[in-house]
Amino acid sequence: MLPGGLVYLDGNSLGAMPRSVPARLSHVASQEWGQQLIRSWTADAEAAQDWMALPDRVAAKVARLIGAAPHEVAVGDSTSVNTFKALAAALSLAGERRVILTDADNFPTDLYMAQGLGTLTGDLELRRVPSADIAANLTGDVGVLLLTEVDYRTGRRLDMAALSAQARAQGILTVWDLAHSAGAFGVDLNGCGADFAVGCGYKFLNGGPGAPAFLFVAERHHAAAPVVLSGWMGHADPFEMARDYAPAPGARRFVVGTPQVLSLSALDTALDVFADVDMADVREKSLSLSRTFMALMGPLLARFPLTLVTPEAEAERGSQVSYRHPQAREVMADLIAAGIIGDFRTPDILRFGLTPLYHSHADMWQAVQGIKAVLEARA
Amino acid sequence: MLPGGLVYLDGNSLGAMPRSVPARLSHVASQEWGQQLIRSWTADAEAAQDWMALPDRVAAKVARLIGAAPHEVAVGDSTSVNTFKALAAALSLAGERRVILTDADNFPTDLYMAQGLGTLTGDLELRRVPSADIAANLTGDVGVLLLTEVDYRTGRRLDMAALSAQARAQGILTVWDLAHSAGAFGVDLNGCGADFAVGCGYKFLNGGPGAPAFLFVAERHHAAAPVVLSGWMGHADPFEMARDYAPAPGARRFVVGTPQVLSLSALDTALDVFADVDMADVREKSLSLSRTFMALMGPLLARFPLTLVTPEAEAERGSQVSYRHPQAREVMADLIAAGIIGDFRTPDILRFGLTPLYHSHADMWQAVQGIKAVLEARA
Repeated sequence: MLPGGLVYLDGNSLGAMPRSVPARLSHVASQEWGQQLIRSWTADAEAAQDWMALPDRVAAKVARLIGAAPHEVAVGDSTSVNTFKALAAALSLAGERRVILTDADNFPTDLYMAQGLGTLTGDLELRRVPSADIAANLTGDVGVLLLTEVDYRTGRRLDMAALSAQARAQGILTVWDLAHSAGAFGVDLNGCGADFAVGCGYKFLNGGPGAPAFLFVAERHHAAAPVVLSGWMGHADPFEMARDYAPAPGARRFVVGTPQVLSLSALDTALDVFADVDMADVREKSLSLSRTFMALMGPLLARFPLTLVTPEAEAERGSQVSYRHPQAREVMADLIAAGIIGDFRTPDILRFGLTPLYHSHADMWQAVQGIKAVLEARA
Repeated sequence: MLPGGLVYLDGNSLGAMPRSVPARLSHVASQEWGQQLIRSWTADAEAAQDWMALPDRVAAKVARLIGAAPHEVAVGDSTSVNTFKALAAALSLAGERRVILTDADNFPTDLYMAQGLGTLTGDLELRRVPSADIAANLTGDVGVLLLTEVDYRTGRRLDMAALSAQARAQGILTVWDLAHSAGAFGVDLNGCGADFAVGCGYKFLNGGPGAPAFLFVAERHHAAAPVVLSGWMGHADPFEMARDYAPAPGARRFVVGTPQVLSLSALDTALDVFADVDMADVREKSLSLSRTFMALMGPLLARFPLTLVTPEAEAERGSQVSYRHPQAREVMADLIAAGIIGDFRTPDILRFGLTPLYHSHADMWQAVQGIKAVLEARA
């Protein structure tokens, strides 16, 4: 569902609403909550109607898109909180190694959550290096490598397989942030040997504003990785109301408190859009869109102070195209007023997200025409 | 909104749906998300339409019900996660004192979250004593007192003012769980000198299944209490995308990741029910309902193996009445089948929640008639 008259290039900030969502929300509110009330928590599990198992059902849908087994994924909370869970668990496994290595340009909340964890444990070093220097800094004192696969500003995609392998060779555990990956292209966490991952339900997964996030924990870590946010919904038997925590099997243990069912239900419905989608097709369409967009933008780079910051090598980009412009903030405001909705990102980035499930090549042409008109009007 | 033919005595597990919720959800989905898309995050703030400030607007509505200032309340995440935030902050303030004192019968997730925090810091003792022995255990080695004001099984209400004062006299910080308090009667956190509190949006506040929870941090602690779950939504300037965390003013710093807007909007609407409600009236009605219920149940206690476990002293009970019964699980299943919806709680508790905003005295009579019929049928 997209309003007419807009070119919406911000699906990597808030994905468009799948048409099935309002009816699902209406049903969950008026029927499941309003009529069935508390009974919905334990409603017909065979028919997949119980809220208790809803996080697991959503996890299975996410797992397929990220190369994970269903029991390796927990859905709920925010990406920030899941980053905390992943870092706390990974650092526990890392033992004496108390350095978290990360990209200096990583999305801020990833850095902040690491800082907060350091506040609590008192012994962490958050080592921030430029992304190009990550590989050279995979040294023996590093415990955890925390990276976002696709940079939120530039759209640069890291080589997850290579970096994961290099980290593993040094005994370093990986935590991948898939905020700009999940739903944008096929991710193969297990194929890459990733240890932990987190991601976002509201960007390319179209789960709605602030949709529940997800956490991946590779099966080989389930026995040893501690559950630091140990809540009753991750207990082996929540309604036993036992006095001591005992983890549920698999990644379900990383579900903490009572899930926000309305938001979780919207995400559940949104993910059905992907049910018959081959992620290789999605990637092919995405690259075709970004190729087209960049080609159409080419002539504007000679006329206006625009600099492409997204890698031209296809393997090195995600599903967005970004440019620097000295008045990026003002240019984006003009674009939005003209119905071309992208994002300004500090300090000087114009960011255009390409969402293969609902963009056409004609949208690319229309967007560039609009960008051209705005830049000409400002010249 | 309650279905016909039911007596719903489980509003302390999942509050009934306010009639205004479906229209609000429909608007948020179809208009704010579907049509306005990303622009809703920063929509007209003067008209209170921006999602960015939605957590603060909801916090102000909660604050009024719990005796807090609006800037002392953060809304979001689950009660479990907020308990973690509160314990981590309180323990930091407690310095060398590494003992958390709690009621052995506290709600499990409170205990589990303390256990999880201990997993991370390695130096905590969770000291569990019967609730009657709490006061005697407020000793100089205790750093934090973690209590739920109203026991989820028995409905016993602790004396928050007295216990907070006794704790404070010993240099002990308090963390109060208001899961069965907020919305059930007026809470006066600042009047009691409480340090931290958490609570639940989906019980007496009627915010919907798994509704966002809340965290109270007394203003006097804002400067010194560390933000351990430091996410971008609690940053002083989220869109600056700064590399280092800097806390937002007041309790907003304890908002972590992107809020689940659909669930948060339902809670926001639900709280409007309380806008013109005097919580003293709510308490008076609640006590009248529980008096009536207990009086009507009286004759059944002589005929069936029922034992009242809720205090008869009015100051000592919340807004529920509970009985032990040796076949409590089976009795509650029969009651639910008969349209009398309460809760079974391990090991042998029949729990009946009384929600003054939507229960009448006639409901009490009808419920007891149903209970009588079920017990007679089983005899």
